[in-house]
Amino acid sequence: MVGLEFNILGTSAGGGRRGQINLPHRAVQTPVFMPVGTAGTVKAVPQDVLETLGAEIILGNTYHLYLRPGHEAIRRMGGLHRFMSWPRAMLTDSGGFQVFSLAQLRKVTDEGVRFQSHLDGSSHFFTPEHSIDVQIALGADICMAFDECTEYPADRSRAEESLRLTMAWARRSLDHFRAHQHEVPWHDELGGRKQSLFGIVQGGMYKDLRRESAERLVEMDFDGYAIGGLSVGEPPELTLEMIAEVLPLLPADKPRYVMGVGYPDQIERYARMGVDMMDCVLPTRAARHGLLFTSEGRINIKGARYAEDQGPADPACNCPVCQRYSRAYLRHLMQAREALSGTLNSIHNLAYYLGIMERVRKSLAIKGSELAS
Amino acid sequence: MVGLEFNILGTSAGGGRRGQINLPHRAVQTPVFMPVGTAGTVKAVPQDVLETLGAEIILGNTYHLYLRPGHEAIRRMGGLHRFMSWPRAMLTDSGGFQVFSLAQLRKVTDEGVRFQSHLDGSSHFFTPEHSIDVQIALGADICMAFDECTEYPADRSRAEESLRLTMAWARRSLDHFRAHQHEVPWHDELGGRKQSLFGIVQGGMYKDLRRESAERLVEMDFDGYAIGGLSVGEPPELTLEMIAEVLPLLPADKPRYVMGVGYPDQIERYARMGVDMMDCVLPTRAARHGLLFTSEGRINIKGARYAEDQGPADPACNCPVCQRYSRAYLRHLMQAREALSGTLNSIHNLAYYLGIMERVRKSLAIKGSELAS
Repeated sequence: MVGLEFNILGTSAGGGRRGQINLPHRAVQTPVFMPVGTAGTVKAVPQDVLETLGAEIILGNTYHLYLRPGHEAIRRMGGLHRFMSWPRAMLTDSGGFQVFSLAQLRKVTDEGVRFQSHLDGSSHFFTPEHSIDVQIALGADICMAFDECTEYPADRSRAEESLRLTMAWARRSLDHFRAHQHEVPWHDELGGRKQSLFGIVQGGMYKDLRRESAERLVEMDFDGYAIGGLSVGEPPELTLEMIAEVLPLLPADKPRYVMGVGYPDQIERYARMGVDMMDCVLPTRAARHGLLFTSEGRINIKGARYAEDQGPADPACNCPVCQRYSRAYLRHLMQAREALSGTLNSIHNLAYYLGIMERVRKSLAIKGSELAS
Repeated sequence: MVGLEFNILGTSAGGGRRGQINLPHRAVQTPVFMPVGTAGTVKAVPQDVLETLGAEIILGNTYHLYLRPGHEAIRRMGGLHRFMSWPRAMLTDSGGFQVFSLAQLRKVTDEGVRFQSHLDGSSHFFTPEHSIDVQIALGADICMAFDECTEYPADRSRAEESLRLTMAWARRSLDHFRAHQHEVPWHDELGGRKQSLFGIVQGGMYKDLRRESAERLVEMDFDGYAIGGLSVGEPPELTLEMIAEVLPLLPADKPRYVMGVGYPDQIERYARMGVDMMDCVLPTRAARHGLLFTSEGRINIKGARYAEDQGPADPACNCPVCQRYSRAYLRHLMQAREALSGTLNSIHNLAYYLGIMERVRKSLAIKGSELAS
């Protein structure tokens, strides 16, 4: 069975690397930013536009899709790729983060987490095994181990206890995944190509716990490694410190993924440090509130100063929105609360984020003359 | 100055005709359905998609655009075409219908209508002259005379009084339009091409009043003629009766436009009777509520029966939505209240409406072998 292959095509002195992750549905160029498609849609952006923007891999949220429309329904329909008509690569999170941030009345035991749906209050129980079952049913190219995202701030004993759970759940996630990964809906269709599973480094803001977490996960031998529990309220210096601490401990020949980050300057910096994958709701969520990321900095398109500004959102941007629409028009759509506002703003912000990664990739050295052009 | 030219390319025994309206921004094939772009956007549908669907002319609402962002701002930005980046043809209504249906605390005099904005309660005064000024500033290819849309039901004396106003306002609209139409923002840019003005037949559900209205408008010599005050709550037979009564009284060599209609079977029927232009919010409004028009009839995509239906919304449709997405996915988007739902549903419904008109056009005989292919 062919699963994830990761080829490093170039490296920089700062630790950054350009690579390619071969996944069942797509060869993905890294470093890569993954737009978030929570409920089977990157909010307000049609799939063909995502393709045009060059999105090679998007993220789906297991918690949301499990609750609605349900993973069994998605499995019966051939998996999430087919359900949402997304032919390129996809990654699902484990549901853990949402169980801890969205669900109600949580009760955590070694076995798993009992919680109530934020949609209808119905009761559910998630274990590492169940999370993996759901993710196999959804059929993303990359699944994530079920973890407990340690909150911030967390004292030492809380962080230790949380890490203990996450490590035990990582082991169980991996064992269950290996036993069942052939059940992915597209297994036969794609000639037996297989899903991958990433482990998630936790440990709060304690460097030694982060190190312990990374080392133990590496021993388990995942297909890739994520750094989780960041961007949860801590100061940005601390985020950076934790990433810098963990990255050198992760195998150089496997993808490294920092979850849930960040602002444009952050994702560029992390990518140049050697982070291969990132995801964040920020570009799309900010877009819906009128916050646009541009080469001239952030602008709040609702501002009266843009009322008759006929220039594009970002003069340096060649996305379809900047090529066609003015700041004045984008402002008007916000003012009038028109649905097109969220769509156009999101398209621009995603183009901006994807453009950053493209620029970083180009700036990283390429080994081999055939790729130098 | 070149304005509207209307060429009839073919006719049918039933009165239907295939034609082409040459407008400053586009040669429009008729009979044509015009998607409604109330506030400078056909709700939830990006402009490039409208182009792909083959929309040749869209409608803008003068009342909405006058209130927000304001016609003077739009004039300064070069007109509505440029403001919303719509290069094809456009028609604006007079604002009359919205003043009577949306605004508050209306006071009608012979001079005009004082009303309060539905947005912020601010006080405004619309006269025929002002409506025309606003429409010239917006710069659509076709403007409409300022009229009073007679409500349904209306007794005879009310309908007579309403018609008296509409006829006086039509005269004033036309006089003011002729004196000012050179002020359109794109006048120089398009080599002096000019806007057109249509008169609106009213008269409630009284045939003799409708006849009187049509005859008096024709005497005034507008560029085209609309039948207004229909689809305001009357039974469909009555709508049909009024259209059948008025159509023969309108000049055969000018476009005939029935405002605010209708369901798919209605627009097809009216087109085959000789109506050249129609507009309606129905395809987009229904879409946002999950009602899809298909070759198999209307379906409510929210229905549980579609939960795992992997077929397209309409098996006979080749719109981008039916080519890519399943009923199950469209249902899921509605259930999850995702913004993409309104976009995809609207695209399909508009494709369906535009497709009806395309089919009708093809079925109408063409004079001249060069157009017969």
